Amino acid sequence: MKASNSIKKNASIVNKFLKKELHGNPKQLYDAASHLIVHGGKRLRPFLVLKSCQILGGRQSDAIVAASAVEMIHNFTLVHDDIMDNDETRHGVPTTHTKFDLSLAILAGDVLYSKAYHTISTKSKLSSNYTTSLVSKLSKACVEICEGQVYDIKFAENKRIPTEKEYIMMIEKKTAVLFEVSCAMGAICAKRKQNDVKNLSSFGRNLGIAFQITDDLIGIIGDSKKTKKPVGNDIREGKKSLPIIIAINRANAKEKKIIMKVFGNSKASKKQISLAVDVIRSLGIEKETRNKALKYAQKAETSLGSYTGTAKAEMVSLLGFVISRRL
Amino acid sequence: MKASNSIKKNASIVNKFLKKELHGNPKQLYDAASHLIVHGGKRLRPFLVLKSCQILGGRQSDAIVAASAVEMIHNFTLVHDDIMDNDETRHGVPTTHTKFDLSLAILAGDVLYSKAYHTISTKSKLSSNYTTSLVSKLSKACVEICEGQVYDIKFAENKRIPTEKEYIMMIEKKTAVLFEVSCAMGAICAKRKQNDVKNLSSFGRNLGIAFQITDDLIGIIGDSKKTKKPVGNDIREGKKSLPIIIAINRANAKEKKIIMKVFGNSKASKKQISLAVDVIRSLGIEKETRNKALKYAQKAETSLGSYTGTAKAEMVSLLGFVISRRL
Repeated sequence: MKASNSIKKNASIVNKFLKKELHGNPKQLYDAASHLIVHGGKRLRPFLVLKSCQILGGRQSDAIVAASAVEMIHNFTLVHDDIMDNDETRHGVPTTHTKFDLSLAILAGDVLYSKAYHTISTKSKLSSNYTTSLVSKLSKACVEICEGQVYDIKFAENKRIPTEKEYIMMIEKKTAVLFEVSCAMGAICAKRKQNDVKNLSSFGRNLGIAFQITDDLIGIIGDSKKTKKPVGNDIREGKKSLPIIIAINRANAKEKKIIMKVFGNSKASKKQISLAVDVIRSLGIEKETRNKALKYAQKAETSLGSYTGTAKAEMVSLLGFVISRRL
Repeated sequence: MKASNSIKKNASIVNKFLKKELHGNPKQLYDAASHLIVHGGKRLRPFLVLKSCQILGGRQSDAIVAASAVEMIHNFTLVHDDIMDNDETRHGVPTTHTKFDLSLAILAGDVLYSKAYHTISTKSKLSSNYTTSLVSKLSKACVEICEGQVYDIKFAENKRIPTEKEYIMMIEKKTAVLFEVSCAMGAICAKRKQNDVKNLSSFGRNLGIAFQITDDLIGIIGDSKKTKKPVGNDIREGKKSLPIIIAINRANAKEKKIIMKVFGNSKASKKQISLAVDVIRSLGIEKETRNKALKYAQKAETSLGSYTGTAKAEMVSLLGFVISRRL
């Protein structure tokens, strides 16, 4: 089965579970909490939970609860991040604080977060020692996500361009850790400890890094019709992502001037941004950025070296999908 | 030992634990997360966890982790509530979003929340089945707190004055549930199930209702020097609390007019508010409100009927402290 078909099939199982969990009173709260979820999303993280369980011989039914909880956590971070980034739309849909308001968006995030732990601690059929491991892994990941988000904000506020190492550290916390914990939780749901959890965690972490690097590339050179964001959106927002770090390191004085003129400048004209995007493209950053993503994808694949079977094939196929995507 | 002395003694144990847990990098995040905690607070909820454990013969050392986690949760709700209420100070200290900014305050709340679950799932020496019960109880309480906060917002937005029953339902979710779960968690830390958890939960819930009713009374008639809030603050904010519900039900047409003129009116003058407070006082709401709080305090005490010993005496003493306080 192609990765995208398998992702879709698994997504529908998770969607059904999420729909059941995310309703109640006051209705407005649950409408706000479900808002982004019902409007789409690939459910990549739940896919990783389910496949990581399956690759180790575990049953999908043992992993569905953790898979759904991870998606709740993911959406909790999206809702709160959109507030912090002051974004009005996400994938063409109004963000939660735009559709509802600030208070409801904060609470929508908080209730998603609470439901995630409640779901894990009450709906999972695993024995308590596995449940405790799931909570411990997931909460540690959430701590790191908060830390990563602060680093991201600090990088944006600071005039200095971060080093590649600092950027990787930031995206590891902000993004990769949730991919890592998704795989780790899948392994725990398959009742595995130590070595398997370590291997799957490594797969998830490296996949997550490759995912974010690719995402940041799309943020610079992506087709605005597909991304549903203005051309060069991340440049205008002054996002110090890897492709920007590479571009600035490669640029000569004249090119640097063109880039820096629009970088983080909300008043930059469309023409100025378009020129900066052309300059950045001409510096060959796409190839170098995609190569870096590929390097992490290869590390991820290596982590699965000792496993075989359909689930492995699907996970490796997902790697290819993640680094080659243009949307 | 007087309740206030016992509370102080227990608070210092919890403070030590919290200080150890709430540091890390980026420092700014942990400074924001600790901001309200280091500036005070009675640690009532941790006190309830510790005493509920002790009343059932449990060891304090088995409950300190849960006690600290509850305080993290409490502070998470304070930080996010202050954003929603647009409050600039809390007990004379700048609120987290005022001292830092909106993004850091959202993240400070989120990291406190994450740390609470991480602490419970990794630091508790209890066996996994008790840990899972703690997570399940705590996360359910957090879901209800979010629901309660939305009801509170809806009541404020709606022109209609809620009924007493609706008000009690709202404060049960918004406030009492965290007192309830504190006591339930104490009982679980003492390795008790079913009946004892039920009794202690009932104590906490009724104490929590009595606490909030008293809090709302202070919000109307409290001494502004002690509360560090402007006179009649809750009236100006249009908070539909029990003393207001009672006052409006008792007021004649002329009195109602004076109250409604300033109710929820941010532009009301000091003189107008002062007049409205005098009218409300003259309606005898203090006695009726304190009587309602007393009724819940008595229910709480009844829940502890089958227990004896020092911890019980301290818990009953706390009840008296909660309903008679003027600050």
